[in-house]
Amino acid sequence: MNRIITRTYKEHSQGINNLNETLFHNANGYIGVRGSLEEGVPNGWNTMRGTYINGFYDVIPMKQAENLCNFVDKKDTMVNVADTMTIKCTVDGDNLDMTTGKLFKHERTLNMDAGYTDRLVEWESPKGTDIDVHVRRMTSFVLLPLFSIEYSITAKNKDTQIVLQSSHIAGVTNYCDPTDPRLAAESLKNLEVVVMEMKDGAGYAVSQTSVSKLKMCSLSENSVSFTDENGEKIDVSYDKEIISKADRIDEVFTFTLRKGESVTLTKINIYEDSLRETDCVEAAYRDLRKVKDNTLAYFYEKQADYLKEFWKNSEMTILGDDASSDAVAFNMYELLQAAAKDKYCSIAAKGLSGEGYEGHYFWDTEVFILPFFIMTNPSLAKEILKYRYYTLDKARENAKLLGHKRGALYPWRTITGAECSGYFVSGSAAYHINADIAYAIISYYLTTGDIDFIADVGEEILVETARLWLDLGNYNANGDFVLNDVTGPDEYTCMINNNYYTNCAAKYNISWAVKLYERLIEEGKVSAVASKTGITVEELGSMKAAADKMLLLYDKKLGINPQDDSFLSKPIWDLENTPKEDFPLLLHYHPLHLYRYQVCKQADTVLSYFMFEEMQDIETMRKSYEYYEKITTHDSSLSTCAFSIVASRLGMHDKGYAYFGDSTKLDLENTHNNTKDGVHTANMGGCYMAVVNGFAGVRIREDGMYIAPFVPADWEGYRFVMTYMGRLLSINVDRSDVKVSLLEGEPIEIYIYGKKYALSDRNNEISVKIDGNCVAVINS
Amino acid sequence: MNRIITRTYKEHSQGINNLNETLFHNANGYIGVRGSLEEGVPNGWNTMRGTYINGFYDVIPMKQAENLCNFVDKKDTMVNVADTMTIKCTVDGDNLDMTTGKLFKHERTLNMDAGYTDRLVEWESPKGTDIDVHVRRMTSFVLLPLFSIEYSITAKNKDTQIVLQSSHIAGVTNYCDPTDPRLAAESLKNLEVVVMEMKDGAGYAVSQTSVSKLKMCSLSENSVSFTDENGEKIDVSYDKEIISKADRIDEVFTFTLRKGESVTLTKINIYEDSLRETDCVEAAYRDLRKVKDNTLAYFYEKQADYLKEFWKNSEMTILGDDASSDAVAFNMYELLQAAAKDKYCSIAAKGLSGEGYEGHYFWDTEVFILPFFIMTNPSLAKEILKYRYYTLDKARENAKLLGHKRGALYPWRTITGAECSGYFVSGSAAYHINADIAYAIISYYLTTGDIDFIADVGEEILVETARLWLDLGNYNANGDFVLNDVTGPDEYTCMINNNYYTNCAAKYNISWAVKLYERLIEEGKVSAVASKTGITVEELGSMKAAADKMLLLYDKKLGINPQDDSFLSKPIWDLENTPKEDFPLLLHYHPLHLYRYQVCKQADTVLSYFMFEEMQDIETMRKSYEYYEKITTHDSSLSTCAFSIVASRLGMHDKGYAYFGDSTKLDLENTHNNTKDGVHTANMGGCYMAVVNGFAGVRIREDGMYIAPFVPADWEGYRFVMTYMGRLLSINVDRSDVKVSLLEGEPIEIYIYGKKYALSDRNNEISVKIDGNCVAVINS
Repeated sequence: MNRIITRTYKEHSQGINNLNETLFHNANGYIGVRGSLEEGVPNGWNTMRGTYINGFYDVIPMKQAENLCNFVDKKDTMVNVADTMTIKCTVDGDNLDMTTGKLFKHERTLNMDAGYTDRLVEWESPKGTDIDVHVRRMTSFVLLPLFSIEYSITAKNKDTQIVLQSSHIAGVTNYCDPTDPRLAAESLKNLEVVVMEMKDGAGYAVSQTSVSKLKMCSLSENSVSFTDENGEKIDVSYDKEIISKADRIDEVFTFTLRKGESVTLTKINIYEDSLRETDCVEAAYRDLRKVKDNTLAYFYEKQADYLKEFWKNSEMTILGDDASSDAVAFNMYELLQAAAKDKYCSIAAKGLSGEGYEGHYFWDTEVFILPFFIMTNPSLAKEILKYRYYTLDKARENAKLLGHKRGALYPWRTITGAECSGYFVSGSAAYHINADIAYAIISYYLTTGDIDFIADVGEEILVETARLWLDLGNYNANGDFVLNDVTGPDEYTCMINNNYYTNCAAKYNISWAVKLYERLIEEGKVSAVASKTGITVEELGSMKAAADKMLLLYDKKLGINPQDDSFLSKPIWDLENTPKEDFPLLLHYHPLHLYRYQVCKQADTVLSYFMFEEMQDIETMRKSYEYYEKITTHDSSLSTCAFSIVASRLGMHDKGYAYFGDSTKLDLENTHNNTKDGVHTANMGGCYMAVVNGFAGVRIREDGMYIAPFVPADWEGYRFVMTYMGRLLSINVDRSDVKVSLLEGEPIEIYIYGKKYALSDRNNEISVKIDGNCVAVINS
Repeated sequence: MNRIITRTYKEHSQGINNLNETLFHNANGYIGVRGSLEEGVPNGWNTMRGTYINGFYDVIPMKQAENLCNFVDKKDTMVNVADTMTIKCTVDGDNLDMTTGKLFKHERTLNMDAGYTDRLVEWESPKGTDIDVHVRRMTSFVLLPLFSIEYSITAKNKDTQIVLQSSHIAGVTNYCDPTDPRLAAESLKNLEVVVMEMKDGAGYAVSQTSVSKLKMCSLSENSVSFTDENGEKIDVSYDKEIISKADRIDEVFTFTLRKGESVTLTKINIYEDSLRETDCVEAAYRDLRKVKDNTLAYFYEKQADYLKEFWKNSEMTILGDDASSDAVAFNMYELLQAAAKDKYCSIAAKGLSGEGYEGHYFWDTEVFILPFFIMTNPSLAKEILKYRYYTLDKARENAKLLGHKRGALYPWRTITGAECSGYFVSGSAAYHINADIAYAIISYYLTTGDIDFIADVGEEILVETARLWLDLGNYNANGDFVLNDVTGPDEYTCMINNNYYTNCAAKYNISWAVKLYERLIEEGKVSAVASKTGITVEELGSMKAAADKMLLLYDKKLGINPQDDSFLSKPIWDLENTPKEDFPLLLHYHPLHLYRYQVCKQADTVLSYFMFEEMQDIETMRKSYEYYEKITTHDSSLSTCAFSIVASRLGMHDKGYAYFGDSTKLDLENTHNNTKDGVHTANMGGCYMAVVNGFAGVRIREDGMYIAPFVPADWEGYRFVMTYMGRLLSINVDRSDVKVSLLEGEPIEIYIYGKKYALSDRNNEISVKIDGNCVAVINS
């Protein structure tokens, strides 16, 4: 299987350009470079040309219209850092510009096995000179600071004078679009260039952020080489001029190619930052040396090796639907590109592919993206989870700002761990973020059995988040533990009491905090967390009681779980008679109006039926599902995957597939028309879950792994690999059978349709007939 | 009785200065001039030097941290207009500056019978020249655009060279204080000077606001005259220089006074604006002519006449407590100064005495201030109510912004009628503003019987506000009409369901909309409002039903009215153990934290027991009162008067007086330490109600006027006059008797302690023994 995405054009436009800046971006979880054209775009085009370092931020003011006590009035923002991708090319005096002259072909390729992007341009200049341009860009997974460009030109029809101007531009600003609330409204100068000079043949810049006072170093080294029409190395004389300014260095190469000859400009760019390195300049030259000592070819090879391992552990194929297979692979690759590789950062809503949502991390990471990594790459998942530990102190501070005496409250959106939500009602009030993070930690533990992670990192988070729930909640007159004035996942109803999702999530969070604490005691690993948290037997007791008594609302008359205390007393929004152009509702109705109706932006109670299904019986889930389905607009891209998973769970297979729909192709086909601002990472993770947890019915529980697959009517089948307790499993589902085998690791037992099977070795494939009615068997 | 407030000082300080800028401001409901010193203040003093025109506004940006659909992102702001009060005086070369030389005496006086302020300065210059300065300033109640200054200097110990520089400064900006959320954070240039020149011996300026494009004209004419030591007119030669700049004109008079001689600079200033006048300049010269034709003395006389009539209709005396009597008079005078005299404006939270709350109008006007005018000056009350009619279309637009299909929703804070609240949760969501306005209209009607006002103005507002309630609410499963997601008066609990106050208020609003519509039909006066509103029999029917079925929460177990659906399920805030420095809570706790507790910023349910007492039985009121009293912080200055009135109502006389306390003296004694930003008009109105509706037990109902007085233990008695159905009544209460007499108007019957008495004429005084136990008799 070739994991390659290719797009070919005969003409160039702003729309194509901006979309492809996202689709063909290069990222490795540390740095991300938009797929902007080396030569830039025609004047007047509005494009987001950017390079980002995950976790590298500045702080910008966020003035509140009315500034009440402890309102957030500043926010972290991802900083656009030095541009090293710019290479301008002049061909016999004409600038390379695909909107002038004749464009024979423009092809962009993402090679997900090789881990680089290619760009091919076949162009005739206005003066009639034909050239081919080939550009290969890579951000290395094995040397994270490395962003390389190989830029080749071939003279096609005559001797051609070429001027190549390769730039390193440290003086950059962030993108802004005042018309879109999801993007920054003003372009602030976040980065000040402190030093910019040539040293040892490379140009480097040190820049500092204006408020956070972080430093970063960008380094760029250019070299040219020439080949004849047979690809043999030749010597061509060239002029080289270096133009050095305070915030940019341009290296200009001038030479003449004979017909058939080619030039290759190799540009090695290194990015370092002061979050990770004490001396960024030294680190940059050190990493440059690594590249030069090993050659770039070596890093291409290592990139391929890295990805071979990645695909081995995560590959998924949709049988009989290549387009979906391609889309699934693309999504996984994008998640890998987005995923933090160290504790200083996490996975942003748009990964490192664009500035949408300003590089902030949300619950998306833990609830929608981490499941993929936990099931395919648990060691990476562990790294990503450490970010929340790294920012635990900030969460403790945040809890204090919200008036809590104990515990930690994670921010709704952030880079550094500080709350960056400007509208607390659907920001800070979304306390479920706490339990979402706890959920991911517990999922990681259930899937890996990694009790040491719990001892070192996880349990402290579980205890501090559980404490917050205890501080937040209280017992009502009936003796129920209630959680008031919080906002659940559905942002069309805010600041409500006893949100079903939140109460389930908090119950889960608290119960597991206690359970894992007791397990650590049993395993003799409790001392560190005991001393760090100072938790007492009494406190554990009150946690148990609160979890036990947590109010999970149930409406007897309807037989459903009300979304919150007052939800059912509100009128039902008339979705049928709402004009199409009024969607998404949040862009057309004042939030206060939305809050007054039974209408959901996204899955809320339904999502809890996937994440906390053991808290509810099937009949209630089914009734609730039907109830909420009628009033949910899916105005959030996080909604349909939850509806899909739960439909699958309830045996509504057609619905499960219908909600899955084309969401896998959201970015690849730009169906939401905003992929230009960055990819939708949470949707990508959600689609993965819709297949694995939905169609295949995978559940990881304390007593083992369960699967209960079906095949959607439009598919022939699907197969995927996943990791469970250190074993690599292959799961292969077709219309008649599900076949499971153990690819790596020790023998293990798993449950298929509720029945236990032993997996011994690779050759021992378990084959079980598809059970068309697989609803009840999961709860064996 | 002399209604005079005098303050005498031997030295001058910033604190004294700023406080007196408020206390000794001059205003007439149209213009307001802060009591800033003519000569200004020493460098570095931060003072709010301002002149304001009621309703004259600009629009300034109010950026939202996260701008959701239909969020308010700009606001009206009261504009500081041209400074005509500035007069600098040089005495033998030394600038008059009370912080230099020797200050023998500085006296400031507010004469509330004459309607002007006086300032006396006895000062020795650093060079040893003694002078007396006397300044009289007046804003005329009979010629609203007029602000006059008479500025006199007497040479006390020697021949003295005087330079008087009288300025007209059109280039001014608003005050700002970035540290106080109740004041503007930035000083914006709201006013651009368009023309400034001398014409016909007076300097005038035309200025235009930057966004609202309103124009105003300020005009200033100076003249000097001299008298000898006996007060006889004399001729003294002087030099006069006019220095004319683009945004200011200075007229400089230079002369020598012999010992004992005096000069008087008479400065006639006129303010006109394009809201009220099509040609402001013409209007200004027209009004200047009026002053010159009649002389200033004539206007002093008219001012005294106007006030004589005012006091005749509103005077109140506390027997045996002169300080309280003075304070009550001061408060009434301040309300008169604050009160709009036309439909273009209303009564700002700080009147025209300062820029606190940016000149915005709140519910304060209708609920706390208008009762005073309705009971003492109903024709003025009517004018003030017309402002809400003038802005009804804006309220209709505001309703649409909040998603309502029908009806009008008045803004929480505004000048023009557009919502100017930046935090909708405790702003726009305070829907009760609608019913508060309806309540004032109904009170006006009940007190005056003015059915024509209802036909012309009132009923349209009642119908449109009632419609809004119908559009907002819905029937729950029990058949109750419920109102969800609104904020009641208590801003420590927001966006809740079935706020008791709001539901009572809405019920009242709707019932009266129907009742008065039916009355208009009976009286044959319905046609205009019928055609303007297009209301149908069906709609009236649904209004009746909704009012009937309005859910008024009652908790059986506690026997109280819960503040909202979920209030009682929340934990009670531990007020006892809250550190003193944490009050007011809103400055020390995030609102989300406050929302989670049973803790009240101000009277909410308790206030409804005054305004809508017929909706509840005494026993429930008493239990609720005791319940809420324990959890109310009175962090709002609107709270204690409601607690006082309701305590009086429930026969808790000591409590009624205790809550009344010194609140009458809040501004006069600067007990809240922020009188410098302007007077607290609502508190002034509330104090009035605490006496009239509280101690005297006055209620105006459909079937007549009720009184049921008691005398607080610390008082000997009190007397006041008030108007009811066109009659002027005198009510005189002492420890043994209440005496009521008819001062003006036709005979009428009123209820005293529930028993009917006939008032025939002035000589026929009704005397009734004080009934110490007057609780139940009001509900006769």
